[in-house]
Amino acid sequence: MLKTMLKIGLALVVAGPLWLGGAAAQQSDPLPSWNDGPAKRSIIEFVTTVTREGSPDFVAPADRLAVFDNDGTLWPEQPMYVQLAFALDRIKALAPMNPDWKDRQPFKAALEGDLRTLASGGNRAIADLVTASHAGMTSSQFTAIVTAWLASARHPRFGTPYTDLAYQPMREVLAYLGANGFTTAIVSGGGLEFMRPWTERVYGVAKERVIGSTIKTRFEMRDGRPELFRLPEVDFVDDGPGKPVGIDRQMGARPIAAFGNSDGDLQMLQWTTMSGGRRLGVIVHHTDGEREFAYDRASPFGHLDKALDAAAANRWTVVDMKRDWKTIFAPVKP
Amino acid sequence: MLKTMLKIGLALVVAGPLWLGGAAAQQSDPLPSWNDGPAKRSIIEFVTTVTREGSPDFVAPADRLAVFDNDGTLWPEQPMYVQLAFALDRIKALAPMNPDWKDRQPFKAALEGDLRTLASGGNRAIADLVTASHAGMTSSQFTAIVTAWLASARHPRFGTPYTDLAYQPMREVLAYLGANGFTTAIVSGGGLEFMRPWTERVYGVAKERVIGSTIKTRFEMRDGRPELFRLPEVDFVDDGPGKPVGIDRQMGARPIAAFGNSDGDLQMLQWTTMSGGRRLGVIVHHTDGEREFAYDRASPFGHLDKALDAAAANRWTVVDMKRDWKTIFAPVKP
Repeated sequence: MLKTMLKIGLALVVAGPLWLGGAAAQQSDPLPSWNDGPAKRSIIEFVTTVTREGSPDFVAPADRLAVFDNDGTLWPEQPMYVQLAFALDRIKALAPMNPDWKDRQPFKAALEGDLRTLASGGNRAIADLVTASHAGMTSSQFTAIVTAWLASARHPRFGTPYTDLAYQPMREVLAYLGANGFTTAIVSGGGLEFMRPWTERVYGVAKERVIGSTIKTRFEMRDGRPELFRLPEVDFVDDGPGKPVGIDRQMGARPIAAFGNSDGDLQMLQWTTMSGGRRLGVIVHHTDGEREFAYDRASPFGHLDKALDAAAANRWTVVDMKRDWKTIFAPVKP
Repeated sequence: MLKTMLKIGLALVVAGPLWLGGAAAQQSDPLPSWNDGPAKRSIIEFVTTVTREGSPDFVAPADRLAVFDNDGTLWPEQPMYVQLAFALDRIKALAPMNPDWKDRQPFKAALEGDLRTLASGGNRAIADLVTASHAGMTSSQFTAIVTAWLASARHPRFGTPYTDLAYQPMREVLAYLGANGFTTAIVSGGGLEFMRPWTERVYGVAKERVIGSTIKTRFEMRDGRPELFRLPEVDFVDDGPGKPVGIDRQMGARPIAAFGNSDGDLQMLQWTTMSGGRRLGVIVHHTDGEREFAYDRASPFGHLDKALDAAAANRWTVVDMKRDWKTIFAPVKP
């Protein structure tokens, strides 16, 4: 944190009053990976308006909270959620100690890589896989497992580490908002502890600004050492109507900007944008089957149906990935 | 937040490299409301050691998390928890709409101000009072109710607003740690939403660094407006073994310093201090019946028994309020 403060301190000294007014940011292009178009313009116009002192839409820095879904909004969620790929690898690794899994669903489907059967099992099947693969160790052991997996796992189509697939245009939006006094937070249906080990490095979002689904943990003294143990029991599902609940609990504030890509983000977008005042709602629409993936209403992962209709009714910005993004991927510095 | 950044920016420019090394803070007294003694010295020595680059006990700023209990550690909890006083006032205000309360426990005791009966009802009675008095409205309505109550309520003995009773020596510790690159967080058994409206002003601790007990909330569209409604159901009890769980979930990190005053802080202190490396555990011991209150093993509020024994066994610092604190109260600027 001190390092960040120092950087900010230096930035203030160097940039001076220009930076303070937000004017400097507009002289060079803050979103170089975006093509000119209504999506890019709506983001810049929103930021310019709410940060201009004296504007009737001015929002004080303390109230500038912007929230981002993760899967499908900040990185790909096809051919399956990254965390599901992690869970399947964990299930495979644990299978020798659980011989009954090869005949028991959803473990059988997981071991066979049968995504169709897994998807048809719905949230129940996912919960079974998650509790079996994410529990039974301490919090710090789980962090080590996630970190090791991310270092070796590769995306099945792109062949790169998953963390290299963070969308460059969205990383620019995160940085642009941060430079304009916004607090940014990630609000994922995925697991809190699956994300925290890497969000700061990849997105510049610190651990305490990550919100996600959780399983229960329990404090225990074992062999005279106090530890938190991960239990095979779902605690909180940070999806759909859970997202506003999770944001309120973690941040204690209602956002003024929200970025999502699926029906799981609908209530977060509603809660953010339908609260009076100038607000920004953004939906990332996956339209680029060539450079990424093309899907919406029929997809088992990242299903976008009601939220797409709501976008039109509520004048949310819909990002057409194919048209609006000049670059999609750019490797993240280690 | 921008304001804070600006202040930090200015502080860096003014203080220069002296500040960076932490040396400046040691030239003037960072804890002027503390008398010289082992308690004050242990805090300053800890901070000096973990912030000295090159020291074997050096801790990087990103890992400098310090956590503070609230009731009895940062402000008084006698003759009852402040939030209980709030709940009793709410129960009285709601009583005309709930005529059965005058014959039903724990409401009868609440209306009669019968603390002994309330205390004998244990956590169950407290939970009943809290759900009856803290639910049934939106999150923002509840914030308004708390804010209005704090503006008018007065401590029964001192006759001042409760927020003027924040312990000045502890506010100095919070500021001292903040100036030395620490992230500070409040970890209270009390209600999250009861604290967030005022912790920044009183303690300099922002909403997202407050951890507390919660009741469930639900997202709902009512009359076309999205709101979070507070439900009469306990969600999470941030006390005892719940405190490490709450810290881990909210901050994603294990603290290196913990401040508490009762058995409800025992596990937080254990988890913080028994993890290898140089750590600081502090217990505020209420020994000053003249200027504040004197109590420990026999008190229904702020019961300090096992944690006092553990303090000796684990070499935690025990603050003797009477001996160690020069000043206890100093009005907080509005």
